[in-house]
Amino acid sequence: MSENIYVGVDLGGTAIKVGICNEEGQLLHTYEGPTETDKGVDTVINNIEKYVRLIVEQSPFTWDQLAGVGAGVAGFTNVREGIIILAPNIGFRDVPIRKILEERLGKPVKIDNDANVAALGEAWSGAGKGIDNCVCFTLGTGVGGGIIINGKIYQGFSGMAGELGHISVVPDLEAIQCGCGKMGCLETVSSATGIIRMANDAVERGDRTSLALEENIAAKTVFDAAKAGDEVALRIVNRASFYLGKAMAAVAAVLNPERFILGGGVSKAGDILFNEVKEVYAKLAPEPLQQGVEIVPAKLGNDAGIVGAAGLHIRS
Amino acid sequence: MSENIYVGVDLGGTAIKVGICNEEGQLLHTYEGPTETDKGVDTVINNIEKYVRLIVEQSPFTWDQLAGVGAGVAGFTNVREGIIILAPNIGFRDVPIRKILEERLGKPVKIDNDANVAALGEAWSGAGKGIDNCVCFTLGTGVGGGIIINGKIYQGFSGMAGELGHISVVPDLEAIQCGCGKMGCLETVSSATGIIRMANDAVERGDRTSLALEENIAAKTVFDAAKAGDEVALRIVNRASFYLGKAMAAVAAVLNPERFILGGGVSKAGDILFNEVKEVYAKLAPEPLQQGVEIVPAKLGNDAGIVGAAGLHIRS
Repeated sequence: MSENIYVGVDLGGTAIKVGICNEEGQLLHTYEGPTETDKGVDTVINNIEKYVRLIVEQSPFTWDQLAGVGAGVAGFTNVREGIIILAPNIGFRDVPIRKILEERLGKPVKIDNDANVAALGEAWSGAGKGIDNCVCFTLGTGVGGGIIINGKIYQGFSGMAGELGHISVVPDLEAIQCGCGKMGCLETVSSATGIIRMANDAVERGDRTSLALEENIAAKTVFDAAKAGDEVALRIVNRASFYLGKAMAAVAAVLNPERFILGGGVSKAGDILFNEVKEVYAKLAPEPLQQGVEIVPAKLGNDAGIVGAAGLHIRS
Repeated sequence: MSENIYVGVDLGGTAIKVGICNEEGQLLHTYEGPTETDKGVDTVINNIEKYVRLIVEQSPFTWDQLAGVGAGVAGFTNVREGIIILAPNIGFRDVPIRKILEERLGKPVKIDNDANVAALGEAWSGAGKGIDNCVCFTLGTGVGGGIIINGKIYQGFSGMAGELGHISVVPDLEAIQCGCGKMGCLETVSSATGIIRMANDAVERGDRTSLALEENIAAKTVFDAAKAGDEVALRIVNRASFYLGKAMAAVAAVLNPERFILGGGVSKAGDILFNEVKEVYAKLAPEPLQQGVEIVPAKLGNDAGIVGAAGLHIRS
């Protein structure tokens, strides 16, 4: 039992999830506790330390076997310096988390944003296992992305590579403003938020749809209605799928990845989403960018972030 | 005089250009001779060998100092195997050029396509010198591209990375079919061919433009007319610039490069093109993807291919 282990931390607004991975990216143990964001930065950091120590103590591994700790966080991070620049849902601003945790834990610490670590998790031991070059879209409240090149997260010039939700893909005439301030970003149509917005717009417009009977429309409501034959819902799902497929074709012309991995809540819609995405991709990507290229669902679900965070020490 | 030198070969349909570079990417000597495509594959290969030997003999360097030969060719190449799969304008199909030249010259040989070697040339010692991560667009008859990551050409899964002319960027309603078979590729609007087509369409439609007086419209004719205040020509130039800027914003969201380099004949239009491209990029790329990011003209002109081909031995 002298193998190295790595602890991955998924730092969310409500809960902190931690997990132990071995060197092959297998997730062996997990633990989850409250973030306690309302009690301030110090408490949140105390909680991270506590849960990391706790999961190792409760495992068959020794503290000495712990070779590193990685953390993924929703927000802007300075990966090189190990600083969380801005993470609104945990109330962090300019927190040098790496330095703080390294001092407290006496272990090497690495951080990255949630979309990047999720992509790395999938690439390391999920839907991209064995694939050197893949691109992940995380379709949640927003649209996140991660670019994996030679098995590692690609950061780009200022750590902003893989901001796939901000590919400007909707034509001017139909474009609405994105949270980033720009018009027509992929995120405005292919995220859960975008789908819900399109559904609410349709209801307000008075379109004939079963969605009008819903109190609170969720993305799942729209997908379920589309599957049940509601034409308005189907049109919304197709629009979300169309722009996603179009953005993927653009990514392919740039990077020629071997595999696209689609994760996040919206990706759970399954065939109704994937079939349309594949069709659009086949229509828009030149033939040689299709040969041998696969579009697959993510495999690790909510664990991708923990696994990828642990993987930051092996795959970066 | 014991430093290594590299010979770069730019294999074109009419002429073969060869040049000697030192290890810093400085182009020291050049020679150009006819390709003689009409005389068949063997003659073309004989010519390559002849010109490579000739330029070294005529230089102050010895044959022993020649550490490698690189060649760039317009067409599909299998970089790993060193095979020209299809190069219509020199009539090559499945020619194992690397193996043949290595046997004849007794030197290591590498090949890549023209857009990739031009990008590498600029990155090595042109407009991207000192920049690790940059993206080049070559705006010529078509639109070529090259992705430089950590100073090297990025090939992707099947060697098709950087096919930037085939980013699908024109909305359905205005899209026309590209030579690749797909609709709405960047190449259909932002290449010389695309600009000429838009100009001819305008004339045929009867738009009031000075272009109607031209016998043979070239891309330069359109730029000159636009600079002279012709509104129809200006609209065409703006359209070519708009979609280029839009494609660049998409590339930025994927790769976050530090610098965009625009080369090829169309890029010689200068400010009238660059100003609009920069404006569109600023409009469509999220703020953090603009900070510190530059959009600059290529520096090496027609020599980029020779320099980049020589650089294949140092930067790959």
